[in-house]
Amino acid sequence: MTYAPPVNALMSALTVAGYDRLAELFPDADADTTRAILEAAGDFAADVIAPLNRAGDLQGARYENGAVTAAPGFAAAYKQFSDGGWNSLSADPEHGGQGLPKALEIAVFEMIQAASLAFGLCPMLTQGAIEALAEHGTPRQKALYLPRLVSGEWTGTMNLTEPQAGSDLAAITTRATPDDQGGYRLDGQKIFITWGDHDAADNIVHLVLARLPDAPPGVKGISLFLAPKTLVGEDGALKGRNDLRPGSIEHKLGIHGSPTCVMLFEGAQAELVGQENQGLAHMFTMMNAARLQVGAQGVGIAERAYQQALAFALERRQGRATFASEYPARIFDHPDVRRMLMTIKARTQAARAICLMTAVSADLGQLATDPAEREAARLREEFLTPIAKAWSTDLGVEAASLGVQVHGGMGFIEETGAAQHYRDARILPIYEGTNGIQALDLIGRKLSLGGGAALQGLLADIRRDAAGHELEAPLTAGAEALEACAAWLSERKGSADAQAGATAFLKLAGDVIGGWLLAKGDDAALARFYAGQVLAAAPAQVAAVTQGAELLEAFTG
Amino acid sequence: MTYAPPVNALMSALTVAGYDRLAELFPDADADTTRAILEAAGDFAADVIAPLNRAGDLQGARYENGAVTAAPGFAAAYKQFSDGGWNSLSADPEHGGQGLPKALEIAVFEMIQAASLAFGLCPMLTQGAIEALAEHGTPRQKALYLPRLVSGEWTGTMNLTEPQAGSDLAAITTRATPDDQGGYRLDGQKIFITWGDHDAADNIVHLVLARLPDAPPGVKGISLFLAPKTLVGEDGALKGRNDLRPGSIEHKLGIHGSPTCVMLFEGAQAELVGQENQGLAHMFTMMNAARLQVGAQGVGIAERAYQQALAFALERRQGRATFASEYPARIFDHPDVRRMLMTIKARTQAARAICLMTAVSADLGQLATDPAEREAARLREEFLTPIAKAWSTDLGVEAASLGVQVHGGMGFIEETGAAQHYRDARILPIYEGTNGIQALDLIGRKLSLGGGAALQGLLADIRRDAAGHELEAPLTAGAEALEACAAWLSERKGSADAQAGATAFLKLAGDVIGGWLLAKGDDAALARFYAGQVLAAAPAQVAAVTQGAELLEAFTG
Repeated sequence: MTYAPPVNALMSALTVAGYDRLAELFPDADADTTRAILEAAGDFAADVIAPLNRAGDLQGARYENGAVTAAPGFAAAYKQFSDGGWNSLSADPEHGGQGLPKALEIAVFEMIQAASLAFGLCPMLTQGAIEALAEHGTPRQKALYLPRLVSGEWTGTMNLTEPQAGSDLAAITTRATPDDQGGYRLDGQKIFITWGDHDAADNIVHLVLARLPDAPPGVKGISLFLAPKTLVGEDGALKGRNDLRPGSIEHKLGIHGSPTCVMLFEGAQAELVGQENQGLAHMFTMMNAARLQVGAQGVGIAERAYQQALAFALERRQGRATFASEYPARIFDHPDVRRMLMTIKARTQAARAICLMTAVSADLGQLATDPAEREAARLREEFLTPIAKAWSTDLGVEAASLGVQVHGGMGFIEETGAAQHYRDARILPIYEGTNGIQALDLIGRKLSLGGGAALQGLLADIRRDAAGHELEAPLTAGAEALEACAAWLSERKGSADAQAGATAFLKLAGDVIGGWLLAKGDDAALARFYAGQVLAAAPAQVAAVTQGAELLEAFTG
Repeated sequence: MTYAPPVNALMSALTVAGYDRLAELFPDADADTTRAILEAAGDFAADVIAPLNRAGDLQGARYENGAVTAAPGFAAAYKQFSDGGWNSLSADPEHGGQGLPKALEIAVFEMIQAASLAFGLCPMLTQGAIEALAEHGTPRQKALYLPRLVSGEWTGTMNLTEPQAGSDLAAITTRATPDDQGGYRLDGQKIFITWGDHDAADNIVHLVLARLPDAPPGVKGISLFLAPKTLVGEDGALKGRNDLRPGSIEHKLGIHGSPTCVMLFEGAQAELVGQENQGLAHMFTMMNAARLQVGAQGVGIAERAYQQALAFALERRQGRATFASEYPARIFDHPDVRRMLMTIKARTQAARAICLMTAVSADLGQLATDPAEREAARLREEFLTPIAKAWSTDLGVEAASLGVQVHGGMGFIEETGAAQHYRDARILPIYEGTNGIQALDLIGRKLSLGGGAALQGLLADIRRDAAGHELEAPLTAGAEALEACAAWLSERKGSADAQAGATAFLKLAGDVIGGWLLAKGDDAALARFYAGQVLAAAPAQVAAVTQGAELLEAFTG
């Protein structure tokens, strides 16, 4: 199954997301350059990466003799990826980056992820390491590690999870012991480490959460360390293996091309990144960027599933259809099949716009010259991040499932390829903070940010754009539902009642914001369809958000 | 992962479904006997079948040297299944059956399916063959085949699909040629034939749709044939292989323990079942019963996914939870996790009641002494069948997906077992008529049955039970939404507009009828939770049902 880069849809979503504003701040963010970059990235994704996706699933990464071999073709494609400069789009030119907007990078990464989620995870994790080091590293660390991470010569990982410490990182037990030479030794076991080992790059820079000997318990006693797979001299030369290794890789439902490692740290040499006991805060620098990237993965897999289902629906013929006179008709000409396809397409474009608005907000939050604009953008980025992550990845799963359904019996046969999307997509609502965690973040921290300014700003924008729009009624009703739920949740902040409504609130927020962005877009039919299928139901969702925790509290299973 | 037979939930749902009425018609359908049968069946499902489910997934059925070997342990378990009499519950005592209600059989089969969908498909298909022969077979066919199918000594299949003929059976090309001895020879290729070949029984009775030489084109030229794997003498003795064989088995997303065969008919000896050119109508005898069985599969996999997720949530500890003081708390004590679990549980019980009410209606439709009651029950069975199939199987997929989510990262690891449910469940909305086909059947044929009497009867019952009930408001509003949508659809019968709203209407119908049956049940908290999460949204679904086809018609992909 080929992949057709959705460059027009991306350009449209960038416009909706406010990308034009970035042209003033980034010299190369004009429309022509942006489109040219997207087209080149799309060609690369379609021509080089997409053809590897099936073999990556069938054979996957392999663990043998204590080391991981990347899936067939992945190492060569990764070299092309980094040689092509695709790893360095948004990084600081000081470290070899191209200084382009994050919004452009997210648009590019959506296509890389659509081509292969398993492949895309490798640069995605490297991005996280770059962000953490750029923000918290010493000048020496930046000089030593960033150029090679930015170029893609080396890759990065995030070592957070341990068997007893998943959503709750307070339970981490990996130990960091000072080595009396200014460095540390790490001992412990990490699990679920994405691309924790592989042979596709010369070195792997592990960022690892661990505890110092005198650290206070809980989250306040976690520090961030850097431990390379191969030790690095002060001149940057590689110096032989560090005492860390992959213990095994997991047998997973999907993304077989992405090695998910148990990582064993056995006295591994490491250096502190940032401040002692501030590791969790530093890691969240990576996590928030990664959450948006995972949202883009959701959009990417939804787009891929859509394209595959559409191609099948245009090819496969069955029965008589009300949209066509010939017999047998394309199944595309059956209204119920077209409903499934349009549902995926409309929600995918909505999710794309949400993710890109999050990214544009991140760019403006760093670079807007007006402090008020910068602060408003920063709040919007924070508010939208959990929605971008959770709403887009729930969509990814739903779209992949609908994609299977469009194929009928063929969808259940692995050779068709639709089933792989359904398997691959299922990790997205889980990693980088489960979607339940995203919802709790949204109602617990993001709703009250800046005294509630983030949501108020969005509501004001929605109402402004709704005024006089043909979808004014559902958009306004959606905004009202959102506001009413936010007030209810804010009054109950931290309570079980609020937590019980968190996921429904996130869904409502995504539904309404997605509808707003579609209505701002250039496909009026898609926006109208979405309004009838999704937005019209928003006012009814208030019941699910505000049901309270009483029944759940009494529930015993 | 063990399976705990939900006997109390089944007894409760049987009561809600009107099972008490059957005690007058079936001598052994009293509550004590019913419970005893359910408990014995549950023990068998849990002790004998459930332990095979994982090996059935890992190794699966194998195709070698032109024949299929069942998955490890499946053949022995199938022998225990038939020896225990589980294959013959509802069959006519004249053919060796036990003459018990279909409703009881569906309750039993839900547990068999929960234990292993792949295993349960074998007797499910045999049931279909029994029903078709019992209704359309000659006295000789009944005498020769039914006792061995009823006992389970032989199994049955349905050979419908061909590469070009899936949802549209009019396109079937398999040929039946008279052999001048009163029999026929079949030539053609069938695909997606469930348990089409295996070594778990002495013989396989294939029911095959094919065309006679002089048959008119389309659905009016299809006849039903019986072709055994091994030829059968008039004394019932086996006489050597027939000219039919499995060509291969499919590599599927799930239900690996169920061999899905390409079947090659190469001059196979066959006999006509029923009337020439009436094959499709005869096959629908099987299809409708099978559709309800697939609905029960949806309930079964939802229950299994629920139990597995609940067990994990009670065991796994992470973080601080608002429902518990200890640290780390069971993840069950986090409201959002409990929300997921209660969502599955409430909807599963609703689906169970819908399936069992369909089955009770089938029993009453055959046996009620009052003709008016019989007719009303028959209409209700017809109306509820597509809802039982589609709503329950959509739930099966959703529940399995939520079950994965409750597990967090562990859910994505195959060893955990949650992922298998997610893979296995995905076939359910596809086979025995896709859920889109079910929705078209509901609005195209079932809405207008008896002049709309089926829906009117349900609405009257809902309103009667809602009066004075604490959930009167949402139930009544749901009934009103259903009635309004039905009127809108009926006015547009056969149009693209109606077809565009079919799936949303089926969902609405399931949501409302499920809510009604939960409200009639013995778990008031579950009904209240469902009302807030599902029923409250019903009035808003009218928009999705009645959006019309205009936007879809203009959609080009």
